[in-house]
Amino acid sequence: MAKVAIVYHSGKGHTKMLAEYVRRGAAAVAETEVVFLEVEEASEQLELLDTCDAIIFGCPTYMGNVSAKMKAFQESAVSRWFSRQWQDKIAGAFTNSACFAGDKESTLIGLMVNAMQQGMIFVSLGIAPAVNEPESFQTINGASPNAINRVDGSLGPMAASMMVEPEEMAKGDLETAYLYGERVANITAQFVRGRI
Amino acid sequence: MAKVAIVYHSGKGHTKMLAEYVRRGAAAVAETEVVFLEVEEASEQLELLDTCDAIIFGCPTYMGNVSAKMKAFQESAVSRWFSRQWQDKIAGAFTNSACFAGDKESTLIGLMVNAMQQGMIFVSLGIAPAVNEPESFQTINGASPNAINRVDGSLGPMAASMMVEPEEMAKGDLETAYLYGERVANITAQFVRGRI
Amino acid sequence: MAKVAIVYHSGKGHTKMLAEYVRRGAAAVAETEVVFLEVEEASEQLELLDTCDAIIFGCPTYMGNVSAKMKAFQESAVSRWFSRQWQDKIAGAFTNSACFAGDKESTLIGLMVNAMQQGMIFVSLGIAPAVNEPESFQTINGASPNAINRVDGSLGPMAASMMVEPEEMAKGDLETAYLYGERVANITAQFVRGRI
Amino acid sequence: MAKVAIVYHSGKGHTKMLAEYVRRGAAAVAETEVVFLEVEEASEQLELLDTCDAIIFGCPTYMGNVSAKMKAFQESAVSRWFSRQWQDKIAGAFTNSACFAGDKESTLIGLMVNAMQQGMIFVSLGIAPAVNEPESFQTINGASPNAINRVDGSLGPMAASMMVEPEEMAKGDLETAYLYGERVANITAQFVRGRI
Repeated sequence: MAKVAIVYHSGKGHTKMLAEYVRRGAAAVAETEVVFLEVEEASEQLELLDTCDAIIFGCPTYMGNVSAKMKAFQESAVSRWFSRQWQDKIAGAFTNSACFAGDKESTLIGLMVNAMQQGMIFVSLGIAPAVNEPESFQTINGASPNAINRVDGSLGPMAASMMVEPEEMAKGDLETAYLYGERVANITAQFVRGRI
Repeated sequence: MAKVAIVYHSGKGHTKMLAEYVRRGAAAVAETEVVFLEVEEASEQLELLDTCDAIIFGCPTYMGNVSAKMKAFQESAVSRWFSRQWQDKIAGAFTNSACFAGDKESTLIGLMVNAMQQGMIFVSLGIAPAVNEPESFQTINGASPNAINRVDGSLGPMAASMMVEPEEMAKGDLETAYLYGERVANITAQFVRGRI
Repeated sequence: MAKVAIVYHSGKGHTKMLAEYVRRGAAAVAETEVVFLEVEEASEQLELLDTCDAIIFGCPTYMGNVSAKMKAFQESAVSRWFSRQWQDKIAGAFTNSACFAGDKESTLIGLMVNAMQQGMIFVSLGIAPAVNEPESFQTINGASPNAINRVDGSLGPMAASMMVEPEEMAKGDLETAYLYGERVANITAQFVRGRI
Repeated sequence: MAKVAIVYHSGKGHTKMLAEYVRRGAAAVAETEVVFLEVEEASEQLELLDTCDAIIFGCPTYMGNVSAKMKAFQESAVSRWFSRQWQDKIAGAFTNSACFAGDKESTLIGLMVNAMQQGMIFVSLGIAPAVNEPESFQTINGASPNAINRVDGSLGPMAASMMVEPEEMAKGDLETAYLYGERVANITAQFVRGRI
């Protein structure tokens, strides 16, 4: 049995929607228990996170970096940096912002560097850009909203939610989040099985 | 009189096309002389670069970072790191890759960090995303190919050239490059005028 | 007359000490007015910052990135991202943490990326490592605490304050901060003089 | 049986010395086979790398980023990006430069981003700064050369070789490399055991 936590901050619901799809993907993996925590709750439940085998961190990209609320959560977990209690856990990351690139990579790198400080093991997205709709690339309009990894992340899922409501987010972005949740849970299960 | 250099590497012509638009933008600024060098030439002409007030660096994003050929140029200029001869020059950066985000930010940060090592002053893109076509944001399809800064860079122009030929690149991407060339040249002119 | 603001967050006084040396360096430049603001005050005084020609941002490196309090300040200034009111201002950055490298570069890059989003122009440290004590390099012990830029930053000053009190910080780290304040103020003055 | 490759570039022998300690650490793990390749050889032996469970990448930090020779190797492996053959391999990274911080983090992030593009799983250093000599922190002189992780990396080992010969490198830096080799090999073994 593997335990995967999703810790997210969401300003207006878009990142929560992504988090929800990451959750569904992780929950689809056999023998996986999923813990789903908003960042402020998560700061109060570090002991619960201590029991998890993986933590996937997600937040919006605000002013080109991790949101202040997610950063405050990371700082609340400095006790785990000292105690090395999160050492060797699996980590992952995802983010959302209005537009395409928009320094979303800074946010994913910020989430990853924090995981490195905690001694974790970071799982890439592992999906080539627009895999299910390669014909999207034949046009300067870019990938279809239905294309998986249309925004082209490599560290984790990136969504572009362009002034749409959370429930109108691009199907491809949400499906990318689902696949990443599934991927991280599968890799976590493998690590757990490999423990002596 | 201000002197602005553009130093670029291009694998298949797309980054060269961007460089050409940066050049045109810079050349449109009064009393600006533009130096246009491919990276391998540039390594042989460091003395010419010594005489410039600004250097704008551009290369494709290959495997998530500055291209090896641009990196080799940067290393060829280590003598200027020792001599501090490029200190206080103005710097800028641009990049291209097939898809939208695709770790292009890593490349721009890589070009910027090298400029910092050389003691330079780095000019942001300075353009909000998709400024000329704000209605693009009302759709999950993302910005129109005609929208300026549709890819949403902040350090410098980012282009997404999606398996199209250089001459078919998105009009918005090319115009973004033009505006950045103009911006860097204007800021360079101001800085030159301010010298005592 | 040029106006340079220093906006800092300090947890235990070390970054405030650095900020104080940046302030002194800037104040040493003729015809320069210095504005000195702690981040929480700064969020309340965005109009004052609007009137400045330069803003230098400083914060501790916490969990490998910009501190949450500095990040909250950056988010409080999102109105200036929309209005483009900080466009073309000069920017700079500095940071402190206990140890040598410790992901301080992530923090400086985070402060720089935010400045890029605001359309600013970023000034490098512009000082080679350990310039005043080159003999420090002949030993694996590393640079003397008196050496300027002993920690070896390139974007801006980096200090390592190793469980010492603020008033016991390494002389070289503080002097690096002073020189950077002076450098940013001089470059700002040049830009201001160059305005038509 | 797990197979761990070390792929390194070394300009003057210091990064090779680090690579050698990473190799020894990995080789100390039971049932681990180690492949040791200089980058130019590695470009010719991608099929051998295909058979490895982990690849640890190391290079000097030149001008604030991954060395051009390591970058050329990464580009030579673009075929594996297309084929996804390196997907789910374990990855790690290490670097060396003369001074302490010196943008070494940019290099480790650059090596990590490339691993992410390849769909890999990245292992942090997992060692607190100067663990074996905490008294080093009581002084502004910084950690002793014998202290493990004295330079304070989080993504992987960072060494500062300050104009000394490879054989004179700080004992703490070399031991950090050893421990990281051992750590990556242990995690790889766990992951291999967990395969169904």
